[in-house]
Amino acid sequence: MDLIQSIKERRSINFFEPDVEIPDEKINELISIANLAPSSFNLQPWKVIVVKEKKRKKALRRCAFDQPKAEEASAVFIIIADPEGVELNRERVLDSWAELGYIKNDQQRLMYQGMMNKLYGEKDSLTRKIFAVKNASLFAMNLMNAARGLGLETHPMDGFEVACVRKEFDIPDDKIIPMLIAVGYLKKGKSALPRAFRRDIEEFTRREY
Amino acid sequence: MDLIQSIKERRSINFFEPDVEIPDEKINELISIANLAPSSFNLQPWKVIVVKEKKRKKALRRCAFDQPKAEEASAVFIIIADPEGVELNRERVLDSWAELGYIKNDQQRLMYQGMMNKLYGEKDSLTRKIFAVKNASLFAMNLMNAARGLGLETHPMDGFEVACVRKEFDIPDDKIIPMLIAVGYLKKGKSALPRAFRRDIEEFTRREY
Repeated sequence: MDLIQSIKERRSINFFEPDVEIPDEKINELISIANLAPSSFNLQPWKVIVVKEKKRKKALRRCAFDQPKAEEASAVFIIIADPEGVELNRERVLDSWAELGYIKNDQQRLMYQGMMNKLYGEKDSLTRKIFAVKNASLFAMNLMNAARGLGLETHPMDGFEVACVRKEFDIPDDKIIPMLIAVGYLKKGKSALPRAFRRDIEEFTRREY
Repeated sequence: MDLIQSIKERRSINFFEPDVEIPDEKINELISIANLAPSSFNLQPWKVIVVKEKKRKKALRRCAFDQPKAEEASAVFIIIADPEGVELNRERVLDSWAELGYIKNDQQRLMYQGMMNKLYGEKDSLTRKIFAVKNASLFAMNLMNAARGLGLETHPMDGFEVACVRKEFDIPDDKIIPMLIAVGYLKKGKSALPRAFRRDIEEFTRREY
């Protein structure tokens, strides 16, 4: 599938073919490709819960203002942004840079540690939350683009009660849930609705030429 | 260019061919394609400043801990997340839904207005900031993926002093700058460095099968 054409044709699908399963290998492939998204200092502060079981999708639907797609999509991905990603992954990132020769000595390692700590603040700061959300969203968009190459369609969902999803899926309060992504196949006989309003790029683009 | 292959091969490039200009038409095409990213209720709370002029890139480099790529890349995109996107775009989104027949009457319109207000909180709330950052990041990832289809490479940058970029480029305090994206061409004779650490997907994936 052509990259540009696919990005242009990607749409948020409202009608999924129910009762079609995505094979586990395909789900794994999708997550593996999405996982190649870039992230701040390669810290990868994202997690995902893949909800595929019928009863669990029903539970998610109840948390999502009863939207049918939460149940009808083959799987719903709960995207989690983890502000603790810095502490969890920092040393592994630095180890890997040392192995690859990007870090030459302890002084450089300390410099990078210092930079991460300075840029991403304390664990419960606004800076840290923004760090987690932006990177988890890069992962999410990569996942939505990659899905099309695997014959899947998606719909990112904001319409859910955070407290309900936290409780039902046991997600601690310090994690952020930027979105759910319904993943599956377009329902037979349905097509994507016409695209709604997009701003002209001149409205939001400033040029420093 | 194949979608999946391109997502797999996308890398954050450290060495850009300096003194190569990206034609304006290509920059416009890139922004137009990125602009097809999905967003919360289609509210599109992103803006972008394209820094292409040599002196302005030098100014950006000074704000970015003197990183050469801020100057050597053909253009650097300052990605802006706008918490005010709800107020700016809500009525236009609803008008467009009414035109397309997705909203049938005033009652439905009020319902959607209420949902947006409830989900995205007050203009200066954490919820609203997260709303802005997640959507601007979807735009950013779409832009990085689309770039490759136009023969361009990118590098998302977190290493910059926010206050410096705000002042130099006159960005108000209520806007968030989730990242800069250097855009250009890989320097001749250079290749991407080997990929560093990625977590095994089992480490961050939970399954509700």
